[in-house]
Amino acid sequence: MSKESTVKRWKLIIEYNGTNYAGFQIQPGLPTIQGSIQRAIKEFSGQEVSLTVAGRTDAGVHAYHQVAHFDFDYQYKDGRSREITPYELAKAINSFLVDEPISILDAEIVSHDFHARFGAKHKIYHYVITNRRFKTGLDKGRSWWVKAPLDLDSMIEASKILIGKHDFTSFRDTECQAKSPIRTIDKIDFTREEILNGQKIIMTIEGRSFLHHMVRNIIGTLSLVGEGKWDIEDVQKALDAKNRTAAGPTAPSDGLYLVKIDYD
Amino acid sequence: MSKESTVKRWKLIIEYNGTNYAGFQIQPGLPTIQGSIQRAIKEFSGQEVSLTVAGRTDAGVHAYHQVAHFDFDYQYKDGRSREITPYELAKAINSFLVDEPISILDAEIVSHDFHARFGAKHKIYHYVITNRRFKTGLDKGRSWWVKAPLDLDSMIEASKILIGKHDFTSFRDTECQAKSPIRTIDKIDFTREEILNGQKIIMTIEGRSFLHHMVRNIIGTLSLVGEGKWDIEDVQKALDAKNRTAAGPTAPSDGLYLVKIDYD
Repeated sequence: MSKESTVKRWKLIIEYNGTNYAGFQIQPGLPTIQGSIQRAIKEFSGQEVSLTVAGRTDAGVHAYHQVAHFDFDYQYKDGRSREITPYELAKAINSFLVDEPISILDAEIVSHDFHARFGAKHKIYHYVITNRRFKTGLDKGRSWWVKAPLDLDSMIEASKILIGKHDFTSFRDTECQAKSPIRTIDKIDFTREEILNGQKIIMTIEGRSFLHHMVRNIIGTLSLVGEGKWDIEDVQKALDAKNRTAAGPTAPSDGLYLVKIDYD
Repeated sequence: MSKESTVKRWKLIIEYNGTNYAGFQIQPGLPTIQGSIQRAIKEFSGQEVSLTVAGRTDAGVHAYHQVAHFDFDYQYKDGRSREITPYELAKAINSFLVDEPISILDAEIVSHDFHARFGAKHKIYHYVITNRRFKTGLDKGRSWWVKAPLDLDSMIEASKILIGKHDFTSFRDTECQAKSPIRTIDKIDFTREEILNGQKIIMTIEGRSFLHHMVRNIIGTLSLVGEGKWDIEDVQKALDAKNRTAAGPTAPSDGLYLVKIDYD
């Protein structure tokens, strides 16, 4: 059997709390999700691999369902020299992540032309706001504390302006490296839950792909409408301006969760 | 005005993530919820106070709604010498808890015979289980990871044995200092949510008061039924035995949340 034939491409589904990490992408000297997973793979297998991720989440951003792929040549050398199973691989990686808020939720052998980033067809993010007079406690690092009361109905109305295909220049980071600022938002939904002295708001936003900071800039802008500082028409003006300075602030990473990524 | 008349009894509602704390109750040299709040009060007011808490949660246990009271003599010395308002007090304490996952959600002046512990008439706890093949990631420290598939229907059936007034000796810690092992459980409910490769189970348990480790020993015992290691009748036998060794293991503190405390 040639060496090449035992190299498999693996797809991983990954869950993590991003609070204490400098983001997904590996950075020398900093704790990163990618760095931790690659270290765990090396510890159980002795092999250096390189993950390609679907969405490079920023520092402090969380994921219920991140996707990454990597190429890996691993067989048990137990006489029969059998291949590692998906369950065994996920379990082996997790066993070296015991002390970290990172978990491999599934592993799968995919074809060599599967690409976690370029093959992603649909992404879902949540953005969580704790809207009350007093700061976060239990959910510190896991939601954005907005002190001023938010009028959710006007936020929902304003969000409709952004649904569909638009030039989102006003809502992307000035450092964003995507070639085109055109993106399509398929859906924006909100849920609301009463909490003591306030409300918990969760925005769900869906689309094929998003620009850098796009979700955080959208919710930051919608919060201005919710606070009554902006009219709904101001969101239309911000979109039309095609200029980052025309839209609202970038909401903190704490409230952002990558929730689902679909492939064909 | 005599000094005494400016001493007020305050009731606080407190939220916290207990993961990195040695429990609510102050302990020299260890991080505790009580220690952090008393430090914050001292930093803004210069005064040493002592909190009396409704339920002394153990290390790692969380609260959406803990209650404590303390006596405090504080007036603004701004010419008018007016009293601090409830909003100002909660905000002042929180401003010295910025870096901690603790928040004062409400403050209220109560009568001098209010007692956070003895006056509590009804408590609600949640216990959260992540039941799947792979370990916790995002919810590390916030739920109990149970790997073996749990049959929730049999857990629900078994829980009915424990509802009502019983001698819970088998379900209290051997170090429990309560005089009587008799307690009344008003309600045990379960919710279930599908997650990737598993389920998230939340038990809600309600009663006037609980013995030390009682909720964790109950869910630890019910998990044996869920795993199929015990029959439902074994829970009856454990209850009847009035002996801690007859019931199941103590589930970890990670999954336990104090959710509500009611007073007359």
